[in-house]
Amino acid sequence: MSRRNISITVAYDGTNFWGWQIQKTGRTVQGVLEQALQSIHGHEVRINAAGRTDSGVHATAQVVNFYSDLDSIHGKQFKDALNSCLPHDIRVLKSATATADFHARFSALSRLYRYYIYLAPVGLPHIRRYCWRITVKPDIRRLNSLAATIIGERDFSSFCATGDTSKSMIKRVFTSCFYWQGLFLVYEILATSFLRKMVRNIVGTFIEFEKNKLDKEAFIELIKKKDRKAAGQTAPARGLFLERVDYPNDGVYHG
Amino acid sequence: MSRRNISITVAYDGTNFWGWQIQKTGRTVQGVLEQALQSIHGHEVRINAAGRTDSGVHATAQVVNFYSDLDSIHGKQFKDALNSCLPHDIRVLKSATATADFHARFSALSRLYRYYIYLAPVGLPHIRRYCWRITVKPDIRRLNSLAATIIGERDFSSFCATGDTSKSMIKRVFTSCFYWQGLFLVYEILATSFLRKMVRNIVGTFIEFEKNKLDKEAFIELIKKKDRKAAGQTAPARGLFLERVDYPNDGVYHG
Repeated sequence: MSRRNISITVAYDGTNFWGWQIQKTGRTVQGVLEQALQSIHGHEVRINAAGRTDSGVHATAQVVNFYSDLDSIHGKQFKDALNSCLPHDIRVLKSATATADFHARFSALSRLYRYYIYLAPVGLPHIRRYCWRITVKPDIRRLNSLAATIIGERDFSSFCATGDTSKSMIKRVFTSCFYWQGLFLVYEILATSFLRKMVRNIVGTFIEFEKNKLDKEAFIELIKKKDRKAAGQTAPARGLFLERVDYPNDGVYHG
Repeated sequence: MSRRNISITVAYDGTNFWGWQIQKTGRTVQGVLEQALQSIHGHEVRINAAGRTDSGVHATAQVVNFYSDLDSIHGKQFKDALNSCLPHDIRVLKSATATADFHARFSALSRLYRYYIYLAPVGLPHIRRYCWRITVKPDIRRLNSLAATIIGERDFSSFCATGDTSKSMIKRVFTSCFYWQGLFLVYEILATSFLRKMVRNIVGTFIEFEKNKLDKEAFIELIKKKDRKAAGQTAPARGLFLERVDYPNDGVYHG
């Protein structure tokens, strides 16, 4: 009996999950996925994810891997096998056999998150679970001037929530920018990895700084303080989506 | 005590409603709105809507009017007054005092509906309630060649669901076209008014015709048959949005 490493790309609506990570109580994405794998395998199967999203955060392309001893299901077939026993707020978009050493979390080079902001005096019901509504139009040039200050290697202690167990607070940010897309003001951030609630703390602070007409020098000072209490509000979870995970070899990690 | 005519623009997520029209049992948009108005007025208030949307159909800008004897609330204030007692899947986007003869349904010149189609082998969970997922990419030029055949004044009996009580099956269509917008293939139709399930029957038939390589001549034949059984499938309600209602005087119907 061989043991294959399987990688899957997963999308989920985070609304009705207590985040990614399995807990003693509460419905979690990891819990529901492991339950589906257990029903297929007949025994427990543990999984690794590229990003352990918080409660209420969504994903359009989370990457997950696990080891399977099931010879009857080809790598590509895990997609349909899993979707047939998963609830509708989780979908497996693709699956494949990966190289033995592939690890969804440790092999990842970078993660792309997008945060969706909707500007309106009253919200639209069908998007209410998937964006943060604000009522005053921000100056996007000023937001982008703030956003640019975090590009490069930085200590992000100022934006780290309590309870983070990361060894290092230093992360490298490749992209950090705001743009308009249809109804939404989107904030996009690409970085090696993220601290707990880092994106939501950064977005909330950008919006607060822009509102209070604080400039990029003040933002750079805030980063230097390395103190969470110095930063602004945490933007709500419902606006955040994990949208891409990058791996070596142009993403061709499948074995 | 004066009696003012109030018009409101309403958005709703149709997922958890049994459509617009009040029924003996089941949660309806009309029922929930009239309940909110009753709690504000202390007595029953009946409302009229521009489009009586079916079960599961959404709206981003439904127009409604009602007569109010409440002097304490200005026209513009009904928005906040209603939102404070409405559930989150209905929002009043604006409200105003209208001229005495304004009627949301009978004063309307035209209605704009958009139907959202998502092309993918597996759906994305956060959009699952708001589009129809198809798996084979249609030829948009062929779809638009079919779509153009219904522009003008036509008898739409072939696309009318049973139970429609309209006096006439003749409607005038001003716009009928498909276009790509981000993830979605959108079908847009602007017409004087619509028969029951007309948009969903038309969209379902367009998609079926395109798939079976049937041309516009066949579609024109189908219209001429005036027989619902000759047309194709009904596209699911979840992809349909009532997005605009037009009134005389460039929409300035408020008194």
